[in-house]
Amino acid sequence: MDFAVPEPIQATLNEIREFLDAHVLPVEALFRDHEMPPVEAAMREVRAKAKARGLWLPQLSKRHGGMGLSLLEHGLVSEVLGRSPLGNWALNCQAPDAGNMEILAEYGTREQRERFLDPLIAGDTRSCFAMTEPDKAGSNPVWLGTAARREGDELVLDGHKWFTSGADGAAFAIVMAVTEPEGPPHKRASMIIVPTDTPGYTLVRNISVMGDVGGGWASHAEVRFEGCRVPAANMLGFPGAGFLIAQARLGPGRIHHCMRWLGICERAFDMMCQRAATRELAPGKFLGEKQTIQNWIAESRVEIDSARLAVLHAAWRIDAVGQKAARVEVSGIKFHVAKVLRNVLERSIQTHGALGITDDTVLSFFYRHERGAQIYDGADEVHKTVVARELLERYGLNLRSRGTK
Amino acid sequence: MDFAVPEPIQATLNEIREFLDAHVLPVEALFRDHEMPPVEAAMREVRAKAKARGLWLPQLSKRHGGMGLSLLEHGLVSEVLGRSPLGNWALNCQAPDAGNMEILAEYGTREQRERFLDPLIAGDTRSCFAMTEPDKAGSNPVWLGTAARREGDELVLDGHKWFTSGADGAAFAIVMAVTEPEGPPHKRASMIIVPTDTPGYTLVRNISVMGDVGGGWASHAEVRFEGCRVPAANMLGFPGAGFLIAQARLGPGRIHHCMRWLGICERAFDMMCQRAATRELAPGKFLGEKQTIQNWIAESRVEIDSARLAVLHAAWRIDAVGQKAARVEVSGIKFHVAKVLRNVLERSIQTHGALGITDDTVLSFFYRHERGAQIYDGADEVHKTVVARELLERYGLNLRSRGTK
Amino acid sequence: MDFAVPEPIQATLNEIREFLDAHVLPVEALFRDHEMPPVEAAMREVRAKAKARGLWLPQLSKRHGGMGLSLLEHGLVSEVLGRSPLGNWALNCQAPDAGNMEILAEYGTREQRERFLDPLIAGDTRSCFAMTEPDKAGSNPVWLGTAARREGDELVLDGHKWFTSGADGAAFAIVMAVTEPEGPPHKRASMIIVPTDTPGYTLVRNISVMGDVGGGWASHAEVRFEGCRVPAANMLGFPGAGFLIAQARLGPGRIHHCMRWLGICERAFDMMCQRAATRELAPGKFLGEKQTIQNWIAESRVEIDSARLAVLHAAWRIDAVGQKAARVEVSGIKFHVAKVLRNVLERSIQTHGALGITDDTVLSFFYRHERGAQIYDGADEVHKTVVARELLERYGLNLRSRGTK
Amino acid sequence: MDFAVPEPIQATLNEIREFLDAHVLPVEALFRDHEMPPVEAAMREVRAKAKARGLWLPQLSKRHGGMGLSLLEHGLVSEVLGRSPLGNWALNCQAPDAGNMEILAEYGTREQRERFLDPLIAGDTRSCFAMTEPDKAGSNPVWLGTAARREGDELVLDGHKWFTSGADGAAFAIVMAVTEPEGPPHKRASMIIVPTDTPGYTLVRNISVMGDVGGGWASHAEVRFEGCRVPAANMLGFPGAGFLIAQARLGPGRIHHCMRWLGICERAFDMMCQRAATRELAPGKFLGEKQTIQNWIAESRVEIDSARLAVLHAAWRIDAVGQKAARVEVSGIKFHVAKVLRNVLERSIQTHGALGITDDTVLSFFYRHERGAQIYDGADEVHKTVVARELLERYGLNLRSRGTK
Repeated sequence: MDFAVPEPIQATLNEIREFLDAHVLPVEALFRDHEMPPVEAAMREVRAKAKARGLWLPQLSKRHGGMGLSLLEHGLVSEVLGRSPLGNWALNCQAPDAGNMEILAEYGTREQRERFLDPLIAGDTRSCFAMTEPDKAGSNPVWLGTAARREGDELVLDGHKWFTSGADGAAFAIVMAVTEPEGPPHKRASMIIVPTDTPGYTLVRNISVMGDVGGGWASHAEVRFEGCRVPAANMLGFPGAGFLIAQARLGPGRIHHCMRWLGICERAFDMMCQRAATRELAPGKFLGEKQTIQNWIAESRVEIDSARLAVLHAAWRIDAVGQKAARVEVSGIKFHVAKVLRNVLERSIQTHGALGITDDTVLSFFYRHERGAQIYDGADEVHKTVVARELLERYGLNLRSRGTK
Repeated sequence: MDFAVPEPIQATLNEIREFLDAHVLPVEALFRDHEMPPVEAAMREVRAKAKARGLWLPQLSKRHGGMGLSLLEHGLVSEVLGRSPLGNWALNCQAPDAGNMEILAEYGTREQRERFLDPLIAGDTRSCFAMTEPDKAGSNPVWLGTAARREGDELVLDGHKWFTSGADGAAFAIVMAVTEPEGPPHKRASMIIVPTDTPGYTLVRNISVMGDVGGGWASHAEVRFEGCRVPAANMLGFPGAGFLIAQARLGPGRIHHCMRWLGICERAFDMMCQRAATRELAPGKFLGEKQTIQNWIAESRVEIDSARLAVLHAAWRIDAVGQKAARVEVSGIKFHVAKVLRNVLERSIQTHGALGITDDTVLSFFYRHERGAQIYDGADEVHKTVVARELLERYGLNLRSRGTK
Repeated sequence: MDFAVPEPIQATLNEIREFLDAHVLPVEALFRDHEMPPVEAAMREVRAKAKARGLWLPQLSKRHGGMGLSLLEHGLVSEVLGRSPLGNWALNCQAPDAGNMEILAEYGTREQRERFLDPLIAGDTRSCFAMTEPDKAGSNPVWLGTAARREGDELVLDGHKWFTSGADGAAFAIVMAVTEPEGPPHKRASMIIVPTDTPGYTLVRNISVMGDVGGGWASHAEVRFEGCRVPAANMLGFPGAGFLIAQARLGPGRIHHCMRWLGICERAFDMMCQRAATRELAPGKFLGEKQTIQNWIAESRVEIDSARLAVLHAAWRIDAVGQKAARVEVSGIKFHVAKVLRNVLERSIQTHGALGITDDTVLSFFYRHERGAQIYDGADEVHKTVVARELLERYGLNLRSRGTK
Repeated sequence: MDFAVPEPIQATLNEIREFLDAHVLPVEALFRDHEMPPVEAAMREVRAKAKARGLWLPQLSKRHGGMGLSLLEHGLVSEVLGRSPLGNWALNCQAPDAGNMEILAEYGTREQRERFLDPLIAGDTRSCFAMTEPDKAGSNPVWLGTAARREGDELVLDGHKWFTSGADGAAFAIVMAVTEPEGPPHKRASMIIVPTDTPGYTLVRNISVMGDVGGGWASHAEVRFEGCRVPAANMLGFPGAGFLIAQARLGPGRIHHCMRWLGICERAFDMMCQRAATRELAPGKFLGEKQTIQNWIAESRVEIDSARLAVLHAAWRIDAVGQKAARVEVSGIKFHVAKVLRNVLERSIQTHGALGITDDTVLSFFYRHERGAQIYDGADEVHKTVVARELLERYGLNLRSRGTK
């Protein structure tokens, strides 16, 4: 066993961290003012610089112009980027574009790739991913109300989605819709590319989430498809392949979420220590002298460190044996790191006192927008059931056949 | 022992609850849109109705036009009002005006009462309370940077405050400022009434708190006093009486906070049960069938109920023996109920899934704006030390002389 | 609402507390040595004194020679007695005799009462209650393997029980056994009195529980019934009444458990404060100066106080509206107080350091023998489901018909 | 980074595990009966077998007849051994002998090694380590009441120790005693070898710990030194070297404790899953179908896995950079793994219901005897302060000079 981060990737991590400190963190103050246009202007410059330095597309292979990293290496990059809400965007690996690029690279036809993937890679466009539906439980991903029926050479979509992140300003959406209603549950849906200027596609609103309506990349939309027609050639992979494709993204996606959350943890931890070491309770008497604060610092440190090792181990397992064999590890870190994130944010905010609940620091942003960490991409409760189901099967209890209750 | 709520106050509680459901809850949707003017217009009508029915000023004696309730009775009213962020405002007992009215009624001269209290009582003006300072730890209330020096018949204020809630649009501020710098620590500051149109008084900004800049009553301002002159007659009570006056408000104020939080708990609990009973995970299969959700419902129920009894008991103790003798109970409920509030909000949000983090329900508002419950009016950590100090003294350990560490 | 404990019962509580301090606590040291005979000798004297003073049988009406208390009053007595593991025994209200006496007083025929109840009341004999079975889940009380078939004027029992507390030395057992196998689930079992000298009754062993095999009253036995014949007249109530009778005891029994646990909490809390105030970390530097210890003291205080109010409220509800209408409250306190008990014991032990894990104090006894508080008389998980089921029914979701999962 | 366990050590781990299953676990039932002689007889045979296979002394270098493992490798062995309370004893690496052997091998003179170390290595004798004192706080290890004054060629010891584990039957004690009272705090004490047949040495009692008085190796004694004379040549290292020597053992000792606890976790986890998969709640309805149980399994799995990685990482750091540089990691895992241990034991016991609190399974033993994990070798609270102190120093706050409060 060897816990050392290899030299080459360590050098890259250092470079990214310095880049963030120098160019991205200064933009955060604009971002916290809730106005997107100035942020977008500033980020255009930042992204151009990142691209010029080759700090671009850590999620893609070199063949597609990416950095060509292993999953474990990419995970380490995700952690560094996570320190800022703008980190992933700076290197063009922000959700949901990063995942969409991976899907298009893997499953797209040459035509689909040229039209939709290349501008994403270049950083010239954005995209969105429309899966979640307001009327259907996210814990039951095969239960979809959105359908696409074939009419000649076209697919006609009807349905209602929300939490379609980044739809505001996106060039196209990848939409999960039922195309094979008679198929077995996991083979009913397909992924379909829908340009956002297609008639019948409506962005109803940017949903106000935890106090922010947001805008552009930083938004979560409600969208409707009403008789929305796209060429049948806009389907990704074969009919009914929707879940197959989605699942291929899940394991790596969770590694990135978890490592990003750990980057947030490190940021919040750093702020907590800084505050403890400098905030005076009385002249010459520092907050960090309080044992309660010391407890929080110590507990946070070991929670973060052990969680990071668990995520890196899961990434190493996926790299080694594939995500199916690593299902217990992947679901385990998903809910565990989300909890560590909550713990650390809580403590850091409390250490900051009244300042901690203002938007004068980045803590409030993380606190609000990462409340969803326990919900999106599989609620904690769902992942726990997945882990238990896998493990109990090894003891002879088959929960799949019994339903999970 | 008798746990029954007496008939007359129960009837009042029922009336207030119905009033809220009929008139206040419908305004919440406007409020969640982050725009104050339409909210203020709607609330003007609501308040007029409340006043007409005599549902007005539960915090004041009948002599001052209030409802003339005991602390325990007022606590029960606070709980009902807490169900909506707009509840207290509707009955003209919103912070910080409620406390300011109590101070003016108790300590104001006739002239002060006529000029400042009467319009508050009528609901025609608002006020604010400027105590917290950004550079000084709130856990050390005797360490103030704001001072008021006497020059002839005037007091000249210089200082920097923040979290001056409701300053936006307030007619006057009650300001805590050092006037007797040579006095013993708890007798250095005085409370001074400063009309907000006084030269030298500046509202720097409404602080963005947890994503909301807010406005009007629903705002928290940063304010500066620079050579700000008011008549010496604007002092409340005698020079150096600031803390004495502040402390008289503390016990009852905490009862109201705690009961309001329990009102929030009830609202969130009700939404959680409603969701559990109606949200389908698959056709005919309900969220409430999940044991995890059942655990949350059961744990929340008993946490809320036992916390409420503890708060009512503390109110009963204050009514019976005074707030000094009830110090352990009052500090105890302050941090305990804040924790119950967090637990219940967390569970209700998680039960709502993605909906829970949107601003489509009131949960996000409570989650964001009551994160401060663990901080304002004495951070959890401070109250715990107070309780332990009082109790350990009974065992012969005097922590006051040793400092609390 | 009135939280004052009425004078007369307060005087009784004070008397019992003084009696415990003077006579019962000194016997604890013997008890911790794991040898029962000297404990039994000492307690014989203590019990005689208690009886002489009229501190005897708080669970029975005056008609049966008891103290004639309301449930709420008895609860307050249970708390005082809970301070010592020997407290209930001293006043002849120890489990399971107390419950057996209540059953016999309520459901026994005159003959049954004379033969079995009177010696219990006098304190001359002990009894046990055989319900739990090792092969059947306690969460499913209607699933029993023990059966009693009628043969002429006799009932012939066959079955296997464990956790038959106090069987060692008991004069008789009240046994839950299926007598109406064709009846509806809740009407299959009856309660049958089985003298322990009946052939076919075997006390297999005293089970070692958390390190203690125990003996006499302080033991938990495994017992077997093999062709064990008793007169049919030994049945309590009508055939199939077993659960009906058992349920009548449940609500009050839980009040007593909870109040006893709170008595344990008070004892552990008192020891924690005493230790904090006197243990030196360095000369003149006391453990109680540490903020972590202060946090534990403060958190424990409010947890105990609010839990006590919840239990007293539940007792008041049972007195007022009956235990069926108070089901949410009763199940709620059962798991809630068990948790508070764990919290307080953990903190008190940790405050005592190495001493806390020795048997030199009573803490280890409580820690070990009250681990079962989360299990016996309905596991936490079962009670949470009961609470949720009752509450969700009010929102239109009927979990009873769906099974609880 | 590479998380794979290298082949050779994996083969050793497998062999040890099989050895435990075949030979050690069957002895546990005897051990749970609280009688040591039959256990000692059985273990004599088991140890002879282990020694014959070369599964002996994992803590020592090959030069001393040990297995010659790195700290990380030894850690992995400790985990496997931890599955049974008798595991370490089987391979002759039980505390406190393992540590005493390391001290004697490192600091002993040839004469000391021949007389005291060689029989330990052979497994023919046992030893004990007398450091903790009942009257002095363990959190302040430089505050000792036991002293040894030089008289001619002899050292005369006077003092009072407890938690001298394994003193019952030990051939000698290594005693920490003040020899240089005028030295700086950390250089006052020395380690002195005291044969247990020395006049003036008294084993007062085996302390009853969590219900067990124990005996032989499995005991914790109170001992007194009263004018106890040993040759001055019995001192280990130079005068005042006591803490220096003790500290050299601390880091590795904590790795072993933590890995042993993780072995306990694995045992308890395995039992929990086994129970969940096979215990019926009703015919054909299994405990593992309950979501609460599933949550416990999932949470335990990820807590154990991430904690193990943190411990292995700490061991790797000690191997790589030394224990001083790894202080944050070492103190971090000490309190973190103790908490995971508690969590997993709690859940496994609760899953077992009534069976879980009996001594019919090994869970009760672990639950009782590892309550001390949060206390011995540095209480949680102390380790948290150590971590915070180290970290805050990096932010410019020096807590050492201020005392930790």
